[in-house]
Amino acid sequence: MNRQEVGFNALFRPKNVAVVGASNTFGKIGGATLAAILSGEFRGEIYPVNPYESVVLGLKTYPNITSISGDIDLVVLTVPANTAVEVLRECEKKGVKACIIITAGFKEVGGEGEKLQNEISEIGKRSGMKIVGPNCMGVYSASGNLTAIMSPINPNRGNIAMVSQSGTLGMVLMDSISKNGAGFTKFVSSGNEAVLKLEDYLEYYSSDPEAGVVVAFIEGVRDGRRFIDVARRLTSKKPFIAIKAGKTKAGSEAARSHTSSIAGSIQVFRAVAKQTGIVLAENSDELVDYATAFAKCPLPKGRRVGILSGAGGWAVLTADACEEYGLEVPPLPAGVVEKISERAPSYWSHRNPIDLVSSLDIDLFKFCGEILFEENIIDILLYAYIAYDFSSSFDSLSKVPIFSEEEIETFKKGSRWFMKALAESASSINEKYGKPVLFVTRDSEVYNTLKNSRVPVFGSPIRAVKCIAKMVEYREYQERIGEAEK
Amino acid sequence: MNRQEVGFNALFRPKNVAVVGASNTFGKIGGATLAAILSGEFRGEIYPVNPYESVVLGLKTYPNITSISGDIDLVVLTVPANTAVEVLRECEKKGVKACIIITAGFKEVGGEGEKLQNEISEIGKRSGMKIVGPNCMGVYSASGNLTAIMSPINPNRGNIAMVSQSGTLGMVLMDSISKNGAGFTKFVSSGNEAVLKLEDYLEYYSSDPEAGVVVAFIEGVRDGRRFIDVARRLTSKKPFIAIKAGKTKAGSEAARSHTSSIAGSIQVFRAVAKQTGIVLAENSDELVDYATAFAKCPLPKGRRVGILSGAGGWAVLTADACEEYGLEVPPLPAGVVEKISERAPSYWSHRNPIDLVSSLDIDLFKFCGEILFEENIIDILLYAYIAYDFSSSFDSLSKVPIFSEEEIETFKKGSRWFMKALAESASSINEKYGKPVLFVTRDSEVYNTLKNSRVPVFGSPIRAVKCIAKMVEYREYQERIGEAEK
Repeated sequence: MNRQEVGFNALFRPKNVAVVGASNTFGKIGGATLAAILSGEFRGEIYPVNPYESVVLGLKTYPNITSISGDIDLVVLTVPANTAVEVLRECEKKGVKACIIITAGFKEVGGEGEKLQNEISEIGKRSGMKIVGPNCMGVYSASGNLTAIMSPINPNRGNIAMVSQSGTLGMVLMDSISKNGAGFTKFVSSGNEAVLKLEDYLEYYSSDPEAGVVVAFIEGVRDGRRFIDVARRLTSKKPFIAIKAGKTKAGSEAARSHTSSIAGSIQVFRAVAKQTGIVLAENSDELVDYATAFAKCPLPKGRRVGILSGAGGWAVLTADACEEYGLEVPPLPAGVVEKISERAPSYWSHRNPIDLVSSLDIDLFKFCGEILFEENIIDILLYAYIAYDFSSSFDSLSKVPIFSEEEIETFKKGSRWFMKALAESASSINEKYGKPVLFVTRDSEVYNTLKNSRVPVFGSPIRAVKCIAKMVEYREYQERIGEAEK
Repeated sequence: MNRQEVGFNALFRPKNVAVVGASNTFGKIGGATLAAILSGEFRGEIYPVNPYESVVLGLKTYPNITSISGDIDLVVLTVPANTAVEVLRECEKKGVKACIIITAGFKEVGGEGEKLQNEISEIGKRSGMKIVGPNCMGVYSASGNLTAIMSPINPNRGNIAMVSQSGTLGMVLMDSISKNGAGFTKFVSSGNEAVLKLEDYLEYYSSDPEAGVVVAFIEGVRDGRRFIDVARRLTSKKPFIAIKAGKTKAGSEAARSHTSSIAGSIQVFRAVAKQTGIVLAENSDELVDYATAFAKCPLPKGRRVGILSGAGGWAVLTADACEEYGLEVPPLPAGVVEKISERAPSYWSHRNPIDLVSSLDIDLFKFCGEILFEENIIDILLYAYIAYDFSSSFDSLSKVPIFSEEEIETFKKGSRWFMKALAESASSINEKYGKPVLFVTRDSEVYNTLKNSRVPVFGSPIRAVKCIAKMVEYREYQERIGEAEK
């Protein structure tokens, strides 16, 4: 392990962690952060540091860093700005390997705060300590069982490594992606980036085997040249999904007062993204969707989409969205139409999109999906079976005196069973062919069933289709650079 | 009441309704439809018609239409296509005023089905009977307590009148809009439109005082000239939100096999929408969002947006979205900055977006929102306070042995209280000034609190901002035609 790796290892998989400013009061940042570390079931030693307490949240508490015997891997600072810098000097003397400065009141407030931040930068430069922040929410690491974050969170575990220049936003995005059933290996709220910068985290993620998909919320890039180099290295190995905030005059002014970022031109950023294969999200919804799809789905080998539906209107909207986003909805060969017709009700659509018109025959859905892959007609299968929360629609039947509660429960169970079985058919096709299958619905049974599968679920056709288009684009980028390297 | 009105009145507020094909089996369309009518608590007489049963779902059952004594306002047909046409002839003889043909198997299957549909058209023409369908889901009318739909539904009541050329899709959209807290006065699934066409419903809605906002899902316009006339009349009085499916080659082919619609060019449709003031949704998410916003919100008087946030990243994204969609994020006059600074923590953003950086001072949020309207700085107020489901984030604390269940419950209650109070502040500002206030969050407490308010809630900044832009655009259209009429 080189020095770089030692430092990042101490940050993401520390043997021990000290929390300076630890408090029994949950409302204080030092209290919330220590509680979050405890709730994350950190397995190493935890040292609360607080000169006025001997026990904090049940743990032996130290008056300062130097009074802790032995090496310290990670220190989390939650004390006011000027004190934080003093403690950081102690950390330097003690040889602490990594430090997260959650405290705000640095460059983003100007004046004295800016001077204090410069001191942090200097300490980082001369000591080589890995310093996150200041003015950040903290760090999460699944393999380190580390939730050094100022608010309790509990994301899914998975293959996404994220860095966010906005803390709260990053956490909300992480929560949304998590709810979609994708998971995280690491999350860093990078704050003012006095020492470690966006590019440093991205570089680390590029060679981190736990990071399968990299996601970044970017307000400002500090070193354009290096960013391009790192992005190129990243995208040659794994998808790199980014959103650029501060795109407009109004947004960039807001960004400056937020984390003192210089936003830079979005036109330049878009050009860089295109050149380097970054999957660029234009808004937070897209970021959540793309992260979900790339984290869960295998990449498609081409742009041909098969649409499987039980309602004509959704089939039409889905086909529209595919064509608008440059995907193909290939026609069905006569032989396939014939084979489906042998099993399907006569009024099926006889084309792609395959509309089975409220058929409840799960095997038929499965047959249709499988034959499309089997005969190599498509590269991606999209179930467009939007239903409102199907089973809840039966609630109004309780007003009809003729139906007993048992009967209504039976209807509900039936509809839940159908949606669950339909979801399972999608997952089994994905497993059988190892190819991307996506599901569009609003039915909660489908969400629950597919949560831990490799089939991502979206609430509308446009959201699923945009993901497919981005996956196709990234796959084509990879092929292009593969060709170029030959 | 003229003959047109009499017919529509019988359709939407019938004194009585006969269901032909009524069945005790819920899985049959005639069973589901009758159950839906019963579950909607229809207040007039209900006549099940079925020659093989004497009682259906507890109601006296008739062998045919002619055996029912007295006038019939509305007949719902669920019997097979050829029988349906026979019964329709009986209806004509009996002078039935309106008829909903749910049955499929007409023009969309070609051949014999097409001939049968032509017969329906002729009967409609010569009798003046208001005929909906065939191949449709049915009709909902709040003031008629009528749920003549083949699937049980229970939408919110409200000011939206909708017509959909896709039944299932229309119902899913209605369910989504309903869940957003907007409500419906009428819904028609127009099916193959053998007699009543899209344009007829729109025309009726244009002079229907119960219809405050009109929503349409359109696969094909059959009479372009008339559509333009009706759209223009509609938009001069009330917002008309439409989505056009079958925009692309793939989509229009799917549409043809769905409801035999000729899709027509989307370029032409976009031009028509612009000219006639139609609020055009480009996908189903937009349709749901626009319908929600127009139904709940007063129209803005201008394009100046005030953004109120507790997290910098969301403020930046929201400001970006505003500027991208042509809205203004006006600067704060020095006097206002001063007044807010007197009450806010020193690290607030000192500009619009107003970022109060995790302040928990509800009165301060309210003060900031009110001063922006009070001093006429903005036309629209947007709360951008996205949180994950705040209170649920405390669940992971149960792993920390030091916190008792009571303590965790207290944290949760505190966060729920805060989000509820914040939501209430938004609603109170809306009520006080009668101006549009929108809320961006993922917190379920906010959704619940604002469900019946005039403050729509969206899950991301881009979705709220697109709605504001459309409301501004429509308002400007109205002003333009107002000017032109002078």
